[in-house]
Amino acid sequence: MKKGVFITIEGPEGAGKTTIIELLMEKLNSEGYPAISTREPGGIEIAEKIRSVILDKENKAMDARTEALLYAAARRQHLVERVLPAINNGYIVICDRFIDSSLAYQGYARGLGIDEVYAINQFAIEEMMPDVTLYFDIDPKIGLERINQDKGREINRLDLESFEFHRKVREGYHLLCKRFPNRIIEIDASQSIEAVYEHVANEVLRVI
Amino acid sequence: MKKGVFITIEGPEGAGKTTIIELLMEKLNSEGYPAISTREPGGIEIAEKIRSVILDKENKAMDARTEALLYAAARRQHLVERVLPAINNGYIVICDRFIDSSLAYQGYARGLGIDEVYAINQFAIEEMMPDVTLYFDIDPKIGLERINQDKGREINRLDLESFEFHRKVREGYHLLCKRFPNRIIEIDASQSIEAVYEHVANEVLRVI
Repeated sequence: MKKGVFITIEGPEGAGKTTIIELLMEKLNSEGYPAISTREPGGIEIAEKIRSVILDKENKAMDARTEALLYAAARRQHLVERVLPAINNGYIVICDRFIDSSLAYQGYARGLGIDEVYAINQFAIEEMMPDVTLYFDIDPKIGLERINQDKGREINRLDLESFEFHRKVREGYHLLCKRFPNRIIEIDASQSIEAVYEHVANEVLRVI
Repeated sequence: MKKGVFITIEGPEGAGKTTIIELLMEKLNSEGYPAISTREPGGIEIAEKIRSVILDKENKAMDARTEALLYAAARRQHLVERVLPAINNGYIVICDRFIDSSLAYQGYARGLGIDEVYAINQFAIEEMMPDVTLYFDIDPKIGLERINQDKGREINRLDLESFEFHRKVREGYHLLCKRFPNRIIEIDASQSIEAVYEHVANEVLRVI
Protein backbone atom coordinates (compact mmCIF):
# COMPACT_ATOMS: atom_id res chain seq x y z
CA MET A 1 0.00 0.00 0.00
CA LYS A 2 2.58 2.54 1.13
CA LYS A 3 4.59 3.89 -1.77
CA GLY A 4 5.93 7.30 -0.80
CA VAL A 5 8.24 8.36 2.01
CA PHE A 6 7.05 10.03 5.21
CA ILE A 7 9.59 12.39 6.78
CA THR A 8 8.88 14.49 9.86
CA ILE A 9 10.86 17.47 11.12
CA GLU A 10 10.92 18.08 14.87
CA GLY A 11 12.41 20.56 17.29
CA PRO A 12 11.55 23.84 19.00
CA GLU A 13 10.56 27.09 17.34
CA GLY A 14 13.67 29.07 16.44
CA ALA A 15 15.58 25.94 15.38
CA GLY A 16 15.27 26.86 11.69
CA LYS A 17 12.83 24.14 10.63
CA THR A 18 10.80 26.37 8.28
CA THR A 19 13.85 27.71 6.41
CA ILE A 20 15.40 24.27 5.97
CA ILE A 21 12.11 22.74 4.79
CA GLU A 22 11.85 25.48 2.12
CA LEU A 23 15.38 24.79 0.91
CA LEU A 24 14.73 21.06 0.91
CA MET A 25 11.52 21.41 -1.08
CA GLU A 26 13.32 23.56 -3.67
CA LYS A 27 15.96 20.88 -4.07
CA LEU A 28 13.51 17.97 -4.25
CA ASN A 29 11.29 19.80 -6.75
CA SER A 30 14.23 20.91 -8.90
CA GLU A 31 15.48 17.34 -9.06
CA GLY A 32 12.04 16.13 -10.11
CA TYR A 33 11.06 14.26 -6.96
CA PRO A 34 7.30 14.26 -6.26
CA ALA A 35 7.23 15.94 -2.85
CA ILE A 36 4.97 18.08 -0.68
CA SER A 37 5.54 19.79 2.63
CA THR A 38 2.81 20.24 5.21
CA ARG A 39 2.16 20.89 8.88
CA GLU A 40 -0.84 20.25 11.09
CA PRO A 41 -3.64 21.33 10.72
CA GLY A 42 -2.63 22.12 7.14
CA GLY A 43 -5.83 23.73 5.93
CA ILE A 44 -7.88 20.58 6.60
CA GLU A 45 -11.21 22.04 7.68
CA ILE A 46 -11.99 19.64 10.53
CA ALA A 47 -8.42 19.86 11.83
CA GLU A 48 -8.56 23.68 11.63
CA LYS A 49 -11.77 23.67 13.68
CA ILE A 50 -10.19 21.42 16.30
CA ARG A 51 -7.11 23.64 16.36
CA SER A 52 -9.26 26.71 16.93
CA VAL A 53 -10.74 25.05 20.03
CA ILE A 54 -7.20 24.30 21.30
CA LEU A 55 -5.88 27.79 20.68
CA ASP A 56 -8.96 29.81 21.73
CA LYS A 57 -7.66 32.08 24.47
CA GLU A 58 -11.05 31.93 26.20
CA ASN A 59 -10.58 28.23 26.88
CA LYS A 60 -8.41 28.80 29.94
CA ALA A 61 -9.99 25.91 31.82
CA MET A 62 -8.71 23.41 29.26
CA ASP A 63 -7.25 20.35 30.93
CA ALA A 64 -3.89 19.06 29.63
CA ARG A 65 -5.40 15.67 28.74
CA THR A 66 -8.26 17.31 26.83
CA GLU A 67 -5.62 19.25 24.89
CA ALA A 68 -3.58 16.12 24.15
CA LEU A 69 -6.68 14.31 22.86
CA LEU A 70 -7.58 17.28 20.65
CA TYR A 71 -4.07 17.39 19.16
CA ALA A 72 -4.33 13.65 18.44
CA ALA A 73 -7.75 14.18 16.80
CA ALA A 74 -6.45 16.99 14.56
CA ARG A 75 -3.40 14.84 13.72
CA ARG A 76 -5.61 11.94 12.69
CA GLN A 77 -7.72 14.05 10.36
CA HIS A 78 -4.71 15.78 8.76
CA LEU A 79 -3.06 12.38 8.29
CA VAL A 80 -6.14 10.86 6.62
CA GLU A 81 -6.96 13.82 4.40
CA ARG A 82 -3.53 15.18 3.52
CA VAL A 83 -0.61 12.87 4.30
CA LEU A 84 -1.95 9.42 3.40
CA PRO A 85 -3.33 10.31 -0.06
CA ALA A 86 0.05 11.83 -0.98
CA ILE A 87 2.03 8.87 0.40
CA ASN A 88 -0.25 6.45 -1.46
CA ASN A 89 0.39 8.41 -4.65
CA GLY A 90 4.12 7.93 -4.23
CA TYR A 91 4.95 11.38 -2.85
CA ILE A 92 7.66 12.29 -0.40
CA VAL A 93 5.81 14.05 2.44
CA ILE A 94 7.79 16.42 4.65
CA CYS A 95 5.72 17.20 7.75
CA ASP A 96 6.72 20.01 10.14
CA ARG A 97 5.99 18.43 13.56
CA PHE A 98 4.12 15.18 14.16
CA ILE A 99 3.78 12.61 16.96
CA ASP A 100 7.12 13.45 18.64
CA SER A 101 5.96 17.02 19.33
CA SER A 102 3.10 15.65 21.44
CA LEU A 103 5.46 13.24 23.18
CA ALA A 104 8.05 15.93 23.99
CA TYR A 105 5.74 18.85 24.81
CA GLN A 106 2.76 17.18 26.44
CA GLY A 107 4.05 13.74 27.35
CA TYR A 108 7.32 14.92 28.88
CA ALA A 109 7.36 18.70 29.46
CA ARG A 110 3.74 18.89 30.68
CA GLY A 111 4.20 15.66 32.60
CA LEU A 112 1.36 13.56 31.15
CA GLY A 113 3.79 10.71 30.49
CA ILE A 114 5.44 9.79 27.19
CA ASP A 115 3.89 6.29 27.17
CA GLU A 116 0.38 7.57 27.80
CA VAL A 117 0.54 10.26 25.11
CA TYR A 118 2.12 7.69 22.78
CA ALA A 119 -0.90 5.38 23.30
CA ILE A 120 -3.50 7.93 22.20
CA ASN A 121 -1.33 8.92 19.26
CA GLN A 122 -0.93 5.31 18.18
CA PHE A 123 -4.73 5.17 18.08
CA ALA A 124 -4.63 8.31 15.90
CA ILE A 125 -1.92 7.30 13.45
CA GLU A 126 -2.18 3.46 13.47
CA GLU A 127 0.80 2.13 11.51
CA MET A 128 1.79 5.48 10.02
CA MET A 129 4.93 6.20 12.00
CA PRO A 130 7.34 8.40 10.02
CA ASP A 131 10.02 6.59 8.00
CA VAL A 132 12.53 9.05 9.33
CA THR A 133 12.39 11.98 11.74
CA LEU A 134 14.93 14.80 11.74
CA TYR A 135 15.16 16.38 15.17
CA PHE A 136 16.63 19.89 15.16
CA ASP A 137 18.48 20.16 18.44
CA ILE A 138 19.26 23.61 19.84
CA ASP A 139 19.88 25.19 23.24
CA PRO A 140 16.55 26.89 24.09
CA LYS A 141 18.45 30.10 24.89
CA ILE A 142 19.63 30.34 21.28
CA GLY A 143 16.25 29.28 19.89
CA LEU A 144 14.37 31.87 21.92
CA GLU A 145 16.87 34.59 20.95
CA ARG A 146 16.32 33.80 17.27
CA ILE A 147 12.55 34.02 17.73
CA ASN A 148 12.79 37.37 19.49
CA GLN A 149 14.98 38.80 16.72
CA ASP A 150 12.46 37.81 14.05
CA LYS A 151 10.04 40.74 14.29
CA GLY A 152 7.77 39.48 11.52
CA ARG A 153 7.09 36.23 13.37
CA GLU A 154 3.87 35.76 15.24
CA ILE A 155 4.42 34.80 18.87
CA ASN A 156 2.32 31.77 19.83
CA ARG A 157 1.20 30.39 23.15
CA LEU A 158 4.11 27.97 23.49
CA ASP A 159 6.71 30.68 22.83
CA LEU A 160 5.46 32.36 25.99
CA GLU A 161 6.10 29.34 28.18
CA SER A 162 8.93 29.60 30.67
CA PHE A 163 12.54 28.89 29.81
CA GLU A 164 12.32 25.91 32.15
CA PHE A 165 9.49 24.48 30.03
CA HIS A 166 11.58 24.75 26.86
CA ARG A 167 14.52 23.12 28.67
CA LYS A 168 12.22 20.20 29.54
CA VAL A 169 10.99 19.95 25.95
CA ARG A 170 14.62 19.52 24.84
CA GLU A 171 15.15 16.87 27.52
CA GLY A 172 12.02 15.12 26.21
CA TYR A 173 13.33 15.13 22.64
CA HIS A 174 16.63 13.67 23.86
CA LEU A 175 14.75 10.82 25.55
CA LEU A 176 12.90 10.18 22.28
CA CYS A 177 16.21 10.08 20.35
CA LYS A 178 17.36 7.31 22.70
CA ARG A 179 14.07 5.47 22.46
CA PHE A 180 13.78 5.55 18.66
CA PRO A 181 17.44 5.49 17.53
CA ASN A 182 16.59 3.93 14.16
CA ARG A 183 13.94 6.50 13.29
CA ILE A 184 15.11 9.79 14.78
CA ILE A 185 18.25 11.52 13.54
CA GLU A 186 19.56 14.38 15.64
CA ILE A 187 20.66 17.48 13.72
CA ASP A 188 22.84 20.11 15.41
CA ALA A 189 20.71 23.18 14.64
CA SER A 190 23.12 25.61 16.27
CA GLN A 191 25.30 25.41 13.13
CA SER A 192 25.00 27.74 10.13
CA ILE A 193 21.96 27.32 7.87
CA GLU A 194 24.29 25.92 5.18
CA ALA A 195 25.72 23.28 7.50
CA VAL A 196 22.28 22.28 8.85
CA TYR A 197 20.87 22.10 5.34
CA GLU A 198 23.73 19.91 4.13
CA HIS A 199 23.24 17.46 6.98
CA VAL A 200 19.46 17.36 6.42
CA ALA A 201 19.73 16.99 2.65
CA ASN A 202 22.18 14.11 3.03
CA GLU A 203 19.87 12.27 5.41
CA VAL A 204 16.83 12.84 3.19
CA LEU A 205 18.62 11.71 0.02
CA ARG A 206 19.68 8.58 1.87
CA VAL A 207 16.06 7.49 2.55
CA ILE A 208 14.26 8.51 -0.65
CA MET B 1 -9.99 11.78 47.78
CA LYS B 2 -13.15 10.29 46.29
CA LYS B 3 -16.16 10.80 48.54
CA GLY B 4 -19.29 10.70 46.36
CA VAL B 5 -20.70 7.95 44.17
CA PHE B 6 -20.39 7.91 40.40
CA ILE B 7 -23.26 6.16 38.62
CA THR B 8 -23.60 5.99 34.85
CA ILE B 9 -26.69 5.06 32.84
CA GLU B 10 -26.19 3.36 29.49
CA GLY B 11 -28.29 2.02 26.66
CA PRO B 12 -29.80 3.14 23.37
CA GLU B 13 -32.15 6.07 22.81
CA GLY B 14 -35.73 4.97 23.39
CA ALA B 15 -34.77 2.81 26.37
CA GLY B 16 -36.29 5.28 28.82
CA LYS B 17 -33.06 6.56 30.42
CA THR B 18 -34.20 10.20 30.65
CA THR B 19 -37.52 9.38 32.33
CA ILE B 20 -35.95 7.04 34.87
CA ILE B 21 -33.16 9.51 35.70
CA GLU B 22 -35.81 12.18 36.42
CA LEU B 23 -37.71 9.83 38.75
CA LEU B 24 -34.49 8.79 40.44
CA MET B 25 -33.39 12.39 41.02
CA GLU B 26 -36.78 13.23 42.54
CA LYS B 27 -36.43 10.33 44.94
CA LEU B 28 -32.82 11.10 45.89
CA ASN B 29 -33.55 14.79 46.40
CA SER B 30 -36.74 14.12 48.40
CA GLU B 31 -34.79 11.78 50.68
CA GLY B 32 -32.13 14.42 51.21
CA TYR B 33 -29.27 12.79 49.31
CA PRO B 34 -26.86 15.28 47.71
CA ALA B 35 -27.18 14.29 44.05
CA ILE B 36 -26.88 15.77 40.58
CA SER B 37 -27.61 14.36 37.16
CA THR B 38 -25.64 15.29 34.07
CA ARG B 39 -24.76 14.20 30.57
CA GLU B 40 -21.88 15.10 28.27
CA PRO B 41 -21.16 17.86 27.22
CA GLY B 42 -23.34 19.22 30.04
CA GLY B 43 -22.98 22.92 29.32
CA ILE B 44 -19.20 22.84 29.82
CA GLU B 45 -18.05 25.42 27.29
CA ILE B 46 -14.98 23.58 25.96
CA ALA B 47 -16.91 20.30 25.76
CA GLU B 48 -19.77 22.07 23.95
CA LYS B 49 -17.32 23.46 21.39
CA ILE B 50 -15.83 20.00 20.83
CA ARG B 51 -19.32 18.55 20.50
CA SER B 52 -20.23 21.15 17.88
CA VAL B 53 -17.23 20.02 15.78
CA ILE B 54 -18.41 16.39 16.09
CA LEU B 55 -22.02 17.12 15.19
CA ASP B 56 -21.42 19.74 12.47
CA LYS B 57 -23.17 18.30 9.44
CA GLU B 58 -20.60 19.91 7.17
CA ASN B 59 -17.87 17.71 8.61
CA LYS B 60 -18.74 14.76 6.41
CA ALA B 61 -15.09 13.85 5.93
CA MET B 62 -14.67 13.12 9.62
CA ASP B 63 -12.76 9.92 10.21
CA ALA B 64 -14.14 7.51 12.85
CA ARG B 65 -10.90 7.71 14.88
CA THR B 66 -10.99 11.52 14.85
CA GLU B 67 -14.55 11.31 16.15
CA ALA B 68 -13.60 8.85 18.91
CA LEU B 69 -10.73 11.12 20.04
CA LEU B 70 -13.06 14.13 20.08
CA TYR B 71 -15.62 12.27 22.22
CA ALA B 72 -12.83 11.30 24.63
CA ALA B 73 -11.65 14.95 24.75
CA ALA B 74 -15.17 16.24 25.52
CA ARG B 75 -15.58 13.49 28.13
CA ARG B 76 -12.34 14.50 29.84
CA GLN B 77 -13.34 18.14 30.11
CA HIS B 78 -16.86 17.37 31.36
CA LEU B 79 -15.37 14.98 33.92
CA VAL B 80 -12.85 17.54 35.20
CA GLU B 81 -15.22 20.51 35.30
CA ARG B 82 -18.51 18.92 36.28
CA VAL B 83 -18.28 15.36 37.60
CA LEU B 84 -15.10 15.43 39.72
CA PRO B 85 -15.90 18.58 41.71
CA ALA B 86 -19.31 17.10 42.62
CA ILE B 87 -17.85 13.69 43.55
CA ASN B 88 -15.17 15.36 45.65
CA ASN B 89 -17.88 17.30 47.47
CA GLY B 90 -19.62 14.07 48.37
CA TYR B 91 -22.36 14.16 45.74
CA ILE B 92 -23.99 11.22 44.02
CA VAL B 93 -23.46 11.91 40.30
CA ILE B 94 -25.84 10.25 37.82
CA CYS B 95 -24.37 10.55 34.33
CA ASP B 96 -26.43 9.74 31.23
CA ARG B 97 -23.89 7.90 29.03
CA PHE B 98 -20.13 7.69 29.67
CA ILE B 99 -17.23 5.48 28.58
CA ASP B 100 -19.41 2.45 27.71
CA SER B 101 -21.24 4.43 25.02
CA SER B 102 -17.93 4.96 23.21
CA LEU B 103 -17.02 1.30 23.66
CA ALA B 104 -20.38 0.03 22.34
CA TYR B 105 -21.00 2.56 19.55
CA GLN B 106 -17.53 3.32 18.26
CA GLY B 107 -15.43 0.46 19.60
CA TYR B 108 -17.83 -2.30 18.67
CA ALA B 109 -20.58 -1.08 16.29
CA ARG B 110 -18.26 1.11 14.20
CA GLY B 111 -15.54 -1.54 14.40
CA LEU B 112 -12.68 0.51 15.84
CA GLY B 113 -12.12 -2.15 18.50
CA ILE B 114 -13.29 -2.11 22.12
CA ASP B 115 -9.73 -2.36 23.47
CA GLU B 116 -8.47 0.50 21.34
CA VAL B 117 -11.33 2.84 22.22
CA TYR B 118 -10.94 1.78 25.85
CA ALA B 119 -7.26 2.84 25.78
CA ILE B 120 -7.94 6.41 24.69
CA ASN B 121 -10.80 6.67 27.18
CA GLN B 122 -8.58 5.45 29.98
CA PHE B 123 -6.26 8.31 29.12
CA ALA B 124 -9.29 10.63 29.32
CA ILE B 125 -10.79 9.41 32.59
CA GLU B 126 -7.72 8.04 34.43
CA GLU B 127 -8.99 6.23 37.52
CA MET B 128 -12.52 7.61 37.32
CA MET B 129 -14.39 4.52 36.20
CA PRO B 130 -18.04 4.60 37.37
CA ASP B 131 -18.78 2.86 40.68
CA VAL B 132 -21.77 1.27 39.03
CA THR B 133 -23.27 1.35 35.54
CA LEU B 134 -26.91 0.57 34.81
CA TYR B 135 -27.31 -0.70 31.28
CA PHE B 136 -30.87 -0.37 29.90
CA ASP B 137 -31.27 -3.34 27.59
CA ILE B 138 -33.95 -3.24 24.92
CA ASP B 139 -34.60 -4.75 21.52
CA PRO B 140 -33.69 -1.99 19.04
CA LYS B 141 -37.02 -2.51 17.28
CA ILE B 142 -38.90 -1.49 20.43
CA GLY B 143 -36.47 1.35 21.19
CA LEU B 144 -36.77 2.80 17.70
CA GLU B 145 -40.58 2.52 17.80
CA ARG B 146 -40.66 4.46 21.06
CA ILE B 147 -38.48 7.18 19.53
CA ASN B 148 -40.71 7.47 16.47
CA GLN B 149 -43.82 7.80 18.62
CA ASP B 150 -42.31 10.66 20.61
CA LYS B 151 -43.02 13.56 18.25
CA GLY B 152 -41.47 16.17 20.53
CA ARG B 153 -38.10 14.44 20.51
CA GLU B 154 -35.33 15.76 18.32
CA ILE B 155 -33.93 13.09 16.00
CA ASN B 156 -30.14 12.97 16.17
CA ARG B 157 -27.52 11.57 13.85
CA LEU B 158 -27.32 8.19 15.59
CA ASP B 159 -31.10 7.65 15.46
CA LEU B 160 -30.79 7.67 11.69
CA GLU B 161 -28.25 4.85 11.60
CA SER B 162 -29.46 1.55 10.20
CA PHE B 163 -31.29 -1.04 12.26
CA GLU B 164 -28.25 -3.26 11.79
CA PHE B 165 -26.08 -0.63 13.47
CA HIS B 166 -28.39 -0.50 16.50
CA ARG B 167 -28.38 -4.30 16.66
CA LYS B 168 -24.58 -4.21 16.80
CA VAL B 169 -24.65 -1.55 19.51
CA ARG B 170 -26.75 -3.91 21.64
CA GLU B 171 -24.33 -6.76 20.93
CA GLY B 172 -21.51 -4.44 22.02
CA TYR B 173 -23.25 -3.62 25.29
CA HIS B 174 -23.76 -7.34 25.96
CA LEU B 175 -20.03 -7.92 25.49
CA LEU B 176 -19.35 -5.12 27.98
CA CYS B 177 -21.75 -6.70 30.52
CA LYS B 178 -19.68 -9.89 30.30
CA ARG B 179 -16.40 -8.01 30.53
CA PHE B 180 -17.32 -5.84 33.52
CA PRO B 181 -19.75 -8.07 35.49
CA ASN B 182 -18.98 -6.34 38.80
CA ARG B 183 -19.60 -2.86 37.48
CA ILE B 184 -22.39 -3.15 34.91
CA ILE B 185 -25.90 -4.20 35.93
CA GLU B 186 -28.29 -5.09 33.12
CA ILE B 187 -31.80 -3.69 33.42
CA ASP B 188 -34.63 -5.10 31.31
CA ALA B 189 -35.90 -1.85 29.78
CA SER B 190 -38.76 -3.53 27.89
CA GLN B 191 -40.73 -3.64 31.16
CA SER B 192 -43.14 -0.95 32.36
CA ILE B 193 -41.63 2.32 33.59
CA GLU B 194 -42.67 1.38 37.14
CA ALA B 195 -40.86 -1.96 36.97
CA VAL B 196 -37.72 -0.46 35.41
CA TYR B 197 -37.71 2.32 38.00
CA GLU B 198 -38.04 -0.13 40.87
CA HIS B 199 -35.12 -2.21 39.65
CA VAL B 200 -32.98 0.89 39.09
CA ALA B 201 -33.87 2.46 42.45
CA ASN B 202 -33.02 -0.77 44.29
CA GLU B 203 -29.61 -0.98 42.62
CA VAL B 204 -28.87 2.68 43.32
CA LEU B 205 -29.91 2.47 46.97
CA ARG B 206 -27.65 -0.55 47.32
CA VAL B 207 -24.51 1.41 46.31
CA ILE B 208 -25.08 4.81 47.93
